[in-house]
Amino acid sequence: MVSAVSDDRRYVLTLGCLDRPGIIAAITSFIAEFGGSILEAGYHSDLETGWFFTRQSIKASTVPFGVEELRERFRQIADELGPDTEWQVHDSGLRRRAVVLVSKEGHCLHDLLGRASAGELPATIEAVIGNHLDLAAMAEAHGIPFHHVPFPKDPAERGPAFDQVRELVDKHDPDAVVLARFMQVLPERLCEHWAGRAINIHHSFLPSFVGARPYHQAFVRGVKLIGATCHYVTAELDAGPIIEQDVIRVDHADGVSDMVRQGRDIERVVLARGLRWHLESRVLVHGKRTVVFS
Amino acid sequence: MVSAVSDDRRYVLTLGCLDRPGIIAAITSFIAEFGGSILEAGYHSDLETGWFFTRQSIKASTVPFGVEELRERFRQIADELGPDTEWQVHDSGLRRRAVVLVSKEGHCLHDLLGRASAGELPATIEAVIGNHLDLAAMAEAHGIPFHHVPFPKDPAERGPAFDQVRELVDKHDPDAVVLARFMQVLPERLCEHWAGRAINIHHSFLPSFVGARPYHQAFVRGVKLIGATCHYVTAELDAGPIIEQDVIRVDHADGVSDMVRQGRDIERVVLARGLRWHLESRVLVHGKRTVVFS
Amino acid sequence: MVSAVSDDRRYVLTLGCLDRPGIIAAITSFIAEFGGSILEAGYHSDLETGWFFTRQSIKASTVPFGVEELRERFRQIADELGPDTEWQVHDSGLRRRAVVLVSKEGHCLHDLLGRASAGELPATIEAVIGNHLDLAAMAEAHGIPFHHVPFPKDPAERGPAFDQVRELVDKHDPDAVVLARFMQVLPERLCEHWAGRAINIHHSFLPSFVGARPYHQAFVRGVKLIGATCHYVTAELDAGPIIEQDVIRVDHADGVSDMVRQGRDIERVVLARGLRWHLESRVLVHGKRTVVFS
Amino acid sequence: MVSAVSDDRRYVLTLGCLDRPGIIAAITSFIAEFGGSILEAGYHSDLETGWFFTRQSIKASTVPFGVEELRERFRQIADELGPDTEWQVHDSGLRRRAVVLVSKEGHCLHDLLGRASAGELPATIEAVIGNHLDLAAMAEAHGIPFHHVPFPKDPAERGPAFDQVRELVDKHDPDAVVLARFMQVLPERLCEHWAGRAINIHHSFLPSFVGARPYHQAFVRGVKLIGATCHYVTAELDAGPIIEQDVIRVDHADGVSDMVRQGRDIERVVLARGLRWHLESRVLVHGKRTVVFS
Repeated sequence: MVSAVSDDRRYVLTLGCLDRPGIIAAITSFIAEFGGSILEAGYHSDLETGWFFTRQSIKASTVPFGVEELRERFRQIADELGPDTEWQVHDSGLRRRAVVLVSKEGHCLHDLLGRASAGELPATIEAVIGNHLDLAAMAEAHGIPFHHVPFPKDPAERGPAFDQVRELVDKHDPDAVVLARFMQVLPERLCEHWAGRAINIHHSFLPSFVGARPYHQAFVRGVKLIGATCHYVTAELDAGPIIEQDVIRVDHADGVSDMVRQGRDIERVVLARGLRWHLESRVLVHGKRTVVFS
Repeated sequence: MVSAVSDDRRYVLTLGCLDRPGIIAAITSFIAEFGGSILEAGYHSDLETGWFFTRQSIKASTVPFGVEELRERFRQIADELGPDTEWQVHDSGLRRRAVVLVSKEGHCLHDLLGRASAGELPATIEAVIGNHLDLAAMAEAHGIPFHHVPFPKDPAERGPAFDQVRELVDKHDPDAVVLARFMQVLPERLCEHWAGRAINIHHSFLPSFVGARPYHQAFVRGVKLIGATCHYVTAELDAGPIIEQDVIRVDHADGVSDMVRQGRDIERVVLARGLRWHLESRVLVHGKRTVVFS
Repeated sequence: MVSAVSDDRRYVLTLGCLDRPGIIAAITSFIAEFGGSILEAGYHSDLETGWFFTRQSIKASTVPFGVEELRERFRQIADELGPDTEWQVHDSGLRRRAVVLVSKEGHCLHDLLGRASAGELPATIEAVIGNHLDLAAMAEAHGIPFHHVPFPKDPAERGPAFDQVRELVDKHDPDAVVLARFMQVLPERLCEHWAGRAINIHHSFLPSFVGARPYHQAFVRGVKLIGATCHYVTAELDAGPIIEQDVIRVDHADGVSDMVRQGRDIERVVLARGLRWHLESRVLVHGKRTVVFS
Repeated sequence: MVSAVSDDRRYVLTLGCLDRPGIIAAITSFIAEFGGSILEAGYHSDLETGWFFTRQSIKASTVPFGVEELRERFRQIADELGPDTEWQVHDSGLRRRAVVLVSKEGHCLHDLLGRASAGELPATIEAVIGNHLDLAAMAEAHGIPFHHVPFPKDPAERGPAFDQVRELVDKHDPDAVVLARFMQVLPERLCEHWAGRAINIHHSFLPSFVGARPYHQAFVRGVKLIGATCHYVTAELDAGPIIEQDVIRVDHADGVSDMVRQGRDIERVVLARGLRWHLESRVLVHGKRTVVFS
């Protein structure tokens, strides 16, 4: 899908700014001037916030200069769109990197490893870090280094362990830090440090059932659908911008363990979709909401 | 579907009791003894609570005595199942009655009236009661009496209005009191008075977005699916036992008004399904959870 | 949603042409030049067919001239995009008109009438035409004229009846001819005459179960989901371009009559969505496929 | 879920026979007589065929004799239910065995291996057989023997290869022969030999898009949902009794390769669900239809 093969290579421009007439014309005229071919284009004018968002996927082979010059030239367009404008140009020819944080439950990791092996994930998994050893063999069977960082029982004493995780993660300078059922609440300083890159899969349909044991909570409440939510990690627990959600039907015959089992099928696919969209620069965050050009 | 035509007529037995071996044998042997034909049978042993639930739909024409004698005879079986046993026998030959409470939004009422006209709802709608006049014409076009009970602005002064609603409802002795976007919180005494009969449609996927303006809350939180919940009304707001829920996908392009519009399609069908199951004695309540033999 | 109130009024441009660099720039620069504000923009480059599609919804109050002049001016842009270019500009300030064809089953008509009454359908229903009288009262209760055109039993003799239907339809010059469970196969000449305007709801997930009694076919095949399809009518039965589809889960306990009942909930909503998108100029047809900017 | 640990061990009785009053009483009285505790019970009276189906899951520790004697004793009950009665008693304490047939696409195999490792699949995967070598390493990384059986290009010459597959499969006497994207049409004699045990995942929502390249067919037809179907293999291609189906939404922006990628997520989960239900004796086949006590 996304590879270094020149004909598939794309420069992906994402931009958010205050809306006003002429933005699309300015951007697309800029691209047309050098003969750039737009393969995918998404636009969204948010009438409630007055904000404008776009994602342009330009065929790299139709750009007569490099990505750095593309960024340089575009800067002038962006500057005219106002001081709050945020934008990026991502080169799909550069393979993206992910680091995965896990605990004992392996279904999400197994799924991600399978997608990575099949070339379906637009990233390489650089390392897996676990606070338990349970998933070491799974990572290593796929040739991915596994790092074990034991966590003390007392949450107040976990600072050094988080520092070690941070160090292990940061040396890969990853595009995505994936909390694949990591089960640890990141301290605020890590949330900020990895802002916009740390992605969690929560095993409920948020905002229902924040925090621990969501399937148990779902059983007690007697809901008829259970879900999973992929979201960016922020300092407030399970309250970050939502990238993707999905649900599956349950009924009175499903106990907590049945929900846990069936929920895994949703967790896997919701995480995979959310991560993919993040890696392909399809997700633009604005406050607590996301624009997803899927 | 459910009518007085003898060959379709069913006696529907529902029962909940502490689980122990032999219950199904006791009940079905009782039915077999008089040659009763079971058209539908549902069983559920709840391993988490140790409770047993069943619903038996018996072809009325295979019962060689009336429904009163059926109840009389079954009482002996039930007595042996322990003092906490709860059971009912419902005669599908008796058409059930519903009263609908509304405010200004007519989509749920319109849908219920259509189903009732088409003979799809296993009940007659006896009356519609509104705290506004907006839906009077809609009810009357279907030949259903509409009663207007204006509500004072100050919630503290609504007691007499609720008394009037209660009186209007109770004279129909309805099997279902349907809050079809009624938008008023029932006082505790009415919740208790109509316990197990008052059914609400809430326009969110509960327990997310309890209370007022749930679509607005959903927009602010940036969820990717919106939903609706049909539940029994209890004194705690939007916390009664859930009968049915469903969701529909939304994305960043959907503003609050789009969610309101799309949500209506879910509200209609979730209310109709939940109400149908209630009227066909398919819903057994146990604590905050429901067993639905759909 | 769509009304003549000036601030909501939109000019909706839809266009399909052979893809090449610069199209978006040409169109949006054209709009930017007169200060037009784009409220919604959809683009699609079909890599498999080399075709480009767009829909632009321009705030009418930002266009300093009338819709006719807008069309006149845009013609020059369109001419430069090649001879196969197809485009339209639709003024949302002009309320669209629909005529509904029915037979005996009223659930789709009832649903459409409810949406029209609630102002949710971006069209007025000008007339209902039935080959049976069953739904006359339903239409008339909503103040919509009903025309009865009886159809002879022998399909070979139905020509004059179709001529009469055509005449009744055409005098409203409708934007949509809605076959709401009409159950009659339109003759080829009518398919051509109403090409791109005749919309059917078929009660299966096409291409499964073409033709008569699809729920019966679904039961016999033992499928686990049943569906409905909203599509443009073409001469080949149930093979026209699909606008929208959806499904609902069934199981072994659902007989044909249960499927019929549950299927209605899907038919209603699939037709309503498809019709809405058609009326809002969100559907572009290319060969047997549709692009839907929903 | 299903293991040899005595307290979880279940004897699962499945039965189909001509419906008549008293069957449930006969079966459950039989179980009650020896004090058997029923953990799960499913019943279905098919009004269209006059056939009755049941599944009873009995807690093994409440049966005061072995499974063989249970079968022996039940035989008398079954004999009284008529000559067409079919029944089985399955001991969940005996771990079931599966053999998986594959070609080049590994996503279904990877998923099954993950579920087996996690103890989520109620079977051991005894062997993987491929007509290509692509997935040998994947199987072996999980410690499962892989057998390579090359298939000649000419379908007419594949007889010996199928014989070899049959021999490799049969020596494990498997409860399930899983065609996990095997891409080869089984010859009729193998369909008959493995009748009721060979399970296929077809990458479309059957009966739409039988045969080769279903996603390509789906793209050409312009459907708005794509699906997958898990079914028993019979001599007629893709026409065997359906165990499970599901769908996922696509739109005009999804090309064939996008459908292939998104479809994998449905294939995986539909196969896993269908296989699980088969292995837990939840699927009863009657003609071309299945009763699934899920």
